[in-house]
Amino acid sequence: MNVVDVDTPGGSYPIHIGPGRLDALDQCIPADATAIAVVTNPTVAALYGERAEAALARTGKRVLRIELPDGEAYKDWQSLNLIFDALLTHRLDRRCVLVALGGGVIGDMTGFAAAVYMRGVRFLQVPTTLLAQVDSSVGGKTAVNHPLGKNMIGAFYQPLAVEIDTDVLNTLPAREVSAGLAEVIKYGLILDPDFWTWCEVNAEKLRALDSQAVTYAIRRSCELKAQVVGKDERESGLRAILNLGHTFGHAIESGLGYGAWLHGEAVGCGMVQAAELSADVAGFDRADVERVRALVTAIGCPAVAPDLGADRWLDLMQVDKKTEGGEIRYVLMTRIGEAITRAAPDDAVRAVLARTTQ
Amino acid sequence: MNVVDVDTPGGSYPIHIGPGRLDALDQCIPADATAIAVVTNPTVAALYGERAEAALARTGKRVLRIELPDGEAYKDWQSLNLIFDALLTHRLDRRCVLVALGGGVIGDMTGFAAAVYMRGVRFLQVPTTLLAQVDSSVGGKTAVNHPLGKNMIGAFYQPLAVEIDTDVLNTLPAREVSAGLAEVIKYGLILDPDFWTWCEVNAEKLRALDSQAVTYAIRRSCELKAQVVGKDERESGLRAILNLGHTFGHAIESGLGYGAWLHGEAVGCGMVQAAELSADVAGFDRADVERVRALVTAIGCPAVAPDLGADRWLDLMQVDKKTEGGEIRYVLMTRIGEAITRAAPDDAVRAVLARTTQ
Repeated sequence: MNVVDVDTPGGSYPIHIGPGRLDALDQCIPADATAIAVVTNPTVAALYGERAEAALARTGKRVLRIELPDGEAYKDWQSLNLIFDALLTHRLDRRCVLVALGGGVIGDMTGFAAAVYMRGVRFLQVPTTLLAQVDSSVGGKTAVNHPLGKNMIGAFYQPLAVEIDTDVLNTLPAREVSAGLAEVIKYGLILDPDFWTWCEVNAEKLRALDSQAVTYAIRRSCELKAQVVGKDERESGLRAILNLGHTFGHAIESGLGYGAWLHGEAVGCGMVQAAELSADVAGFDRADVERVRALVTAIGCPAVAPDLGADRWLDLMQVDKKTEGGEIRYVLMTRIGEAITRAAPDDAVRAVLARTTQ
Repeated sequence: MNVVDVDTPGGSYPIHIGPGRLDALDQCIPADATAIAVVTNPTVAALYGERAEAALARTGKRVLRIELPDGEAYKDWQSLNLIFDALLTHRLDRRCVLVALGGGVIGDMTGFAAAVYMRGVRFLQVPTTLLAQVDSSVGGKTAVNHPLGKNMIGAFYQPLAVEIDTDVLNTLPAREVSAGLAEVIKYGLILDPDFWTWCEVNAEKLRALDSQAVTYAIRRSCELKAQVVGKDERESGLRAILNLGHTFGHAIESGLGYGAWLHGEAVGCGMVQAAELSADVAGFDRADVERVRALVTAIGCPAVAPDLGADRWLDLMQVDKKTEGGEIRYVLMTRIGEAITRAAPDDAVRAVLARTTQ
């Protein structure tokens, strides 16, 4: 088993990575917990619900299951309220523990529910998608969507632990594997040129879920993310570079309606667009733009964005949380392994949109 | 002007108490703020909206007004969402500042909106009721109600500052003055026997809003509350004593429907019930129970609780956040100025209900 430690002002906790972690969840529940609520969706529940609950039941504590509808389209207040309704109906108190068993949507919503139920209860992240394992489950960002914007309502709230069972990836659809790999290569692109090159060499192994390669990729991704959030939990500076590809990506997701593209697919495509903009305004090497496009394609993500119309694109990006005083802040590369955040002229962005959408 | 400093792990900030604070709100807005949203209700807006906004406009920043329906009955997700809708429609970013201009409902909702909008923006408390000035605006408890329980969804989130304009009390209905005084005398009863005696002596002056007496009462209340929340921001222990009267009080509010009694009225009556229970199970002097009943009556609060039926009473109190493992924790006095939290046998509670309800 691999262990990565996360250390932030809001809490320190371990990430455990390895096979069979689902069967060891009881070890993560504090002795003083009064009850446990597993929040999941029907798809994940059918595959892993009973195993997780059997492990948790070994604590001798009451274990409640809360199933939410599956998909980004349901990452809203209504679903969140299903959690509150269940917790209150079953009278779970301040010392209960929530367990997020699922992908990023389940993790973000369960984390936010934990942040605000009775002004904060403890929770455990048990991510079952590659994307959630390398990104959303680590670092304490929790949220739900608002009709006027993605992740607009949320909190920074750290879990007790992140339990990554590498076995669960074997039931993941290939498209979700590709979406997860987009976030994996992102860490190389913004922080670690050696890891980027390693990803280029191992792209085929990663797509094929080679156990050793995937475990290393998860571990290295978690290490890099832990480094960043350890320095900047609340995204006042450095942490913003983790949003590479997300400003363009959010516009794709929001413009097409949440759920049409997977989040990781939108981020993968957004990275190509950010690379193009980086070459135009931040001195990023044109040859490296092609390396980004090639690797995004190699991991199975789209590299051409939908044509939403340039005005609509700019409008959708404007609503992103990363604007300051109405100005959009882009994450841009100066070279592979080095990222900055800055504004860019609308004309430059329109030029990029013209050659990256279709 | 009086200044009380609040120092918690979640933030340090001043409470300014004095006449004319409404006209100085511009001094509280940080230079890097991008926009200001004043959250208020129609009643308060008609009285103080323009004055507050005129002061804030002197910053040169954009000032938006958001009016929510007035009353505890509207302290819910729907009202909260009106805030989010307005902030997103007008594209306020992470560096905006929310200003809570109103009573406890406005303060709790605006604080919670600030805690979760874009995962946290800054906010200012400008309480316009005595109750909010001495209680809810200080200490960072924010929340909305859920159909299954009061304040069930919320966060601990500290403001930039609390601006208490003592002039605004002159437009406060007498019933609201009494309700606020319930929280004032509470501080004496749990923490400061000298202040309790001072309240007994000055009850008439306080009800008549004698300027010197009221200013001292607000200052002393804020000092005592700041001491407690400075030691225990997240209510893991000590802070729970501030809930004196609230377990019984919540049952009254919830049992009759939020808004039938004012929160402070319910707390006042709940203090009498807690005093009775304290005498029965915690050695509190019977003569002091009568002093509590007399002072609650003297400040104009009801001292006899509604007859909800004993089973329903216990049921309503059970849902309160202060239960642990299903057991209700009561705040009880051992003597005037000293409080503890502990469980009590249902039979003892039923005996108290039998003689305090009608």
